[in-house]
Amino acid sequence: MRRISYLEAMAETAGRLANGGVFLNVGGEQPNTMTIGWGWMGPCWRRNVFVVLVRPQRHTHDLLKQAGEFTISVPTRAPLREQLAFAGTKSGRDVDKFSGHGLTAVPAQRVNAPIIAECGLHFECRTLMVQEMTGETLAQEVLQYAYPERDFHTMFFGEIVDCYRTDD
Amino acid sequence: MRRISYLEAMAETAGRLANGGVFLNVGGEQPNTMTIGWGWMGPCWRRNVFVVLVRPQRHTHDLLKQAGEFTISVPTRAPLREQLAFAGTKSGRDVDKFSGHGLTAVPAQRVNAPIIAECGLHFECRTLMVQEMTGETLAQEVLQYAYPERDFHTMFFGEIVDCYRTDD
Repeated sequence: MRRISYLEAMAETAGRLANGGVFLNVGGEQPNTMTIGWGWMGPCWRRNVFVVLVRPQRHTHDLLKQAGEFTISVPTRAPLREQLAFAGTKSGRDVDKFSGHGLTAVPAQRVNAPIIAECGLHFECRTLMVQEMTGETLAQEVLQYAYPERDFHTMFFGEIVDCYRTDD
Repeated sequence: MRRISYLEAMAETAGRLANGGVFLNVGGEQPNTMTIGWGWMGPCWRRNVFVVLVRPQRHTHDLLKQAGEFTISVPTRAPLREQLAFAGTKSGRDVDKFSGHGLTAVPAQRVNAPIIAECGLHFECRTLMVQEMTGETLAQEVLQYAYPERDFHTMFFGEIVDCYRTDD
């Protein structure tokens, strides 16, 4: 495990978000993971912040609200395409995603949530703010393809409390 | 002018945001600039997005709402400390910041807003969504030092429509 500045991890993480996705992990009684493809990183409130977006109907949504912390695990050496597809289409309500699907949960360093052993880059975050996207001012062109059912994302603003690689 | 992927510019921009700041520029009848130190970058809505935060009392706030587009200019070779301090403490209501203070406005490529000639890295953005931060769920520790007057930021979510360097 090699600790790094989140600045070193930004481009790789944003690139993976947009190309295949990364894993958003949450702990609690039944730890869960889901694939996300959208998110932002940068400084705010004198902290380093990772903003993740989760639609309200997702199982992870309520788990995240309860937990108040989360991790992001980024595939690096292995693309993990099957695992990303699995974690993005199955719900933790129906299946234990850490059982028999090539995703191994291991404890994080500083938050009570798993990271994924098959990934090589990880962020650990503590939620500082949760806010619903209202969609009122969203450009029509985006509204139509991203929210035909008006299920606007909830934005979780997490302070990055740790960032490290496990692939070198 | 050398066009680059915003991924190449993320770390440098986030680093500068947190250390001295960058310029947020808006066009219109009287173009203006202000120094910002907080912001996020990443993919969302199948676009590349730069989120900037502006408090409602700032002159730039209303200009941004009207304009619907903005640019970010990042100091690279020259630190521009005096210019950043000036643009962060004076209001465009009282002074033309592009007159006699070492900040030269030049037209952007794809949006109707200036970029700053003294900077070497630029983002051009089209606003896709504007949303007030409600602050309801914000961590108390942040609330106390960042919003003692409850003047919560407005978040402007801009699609990055161009990104380029002018310093090489």
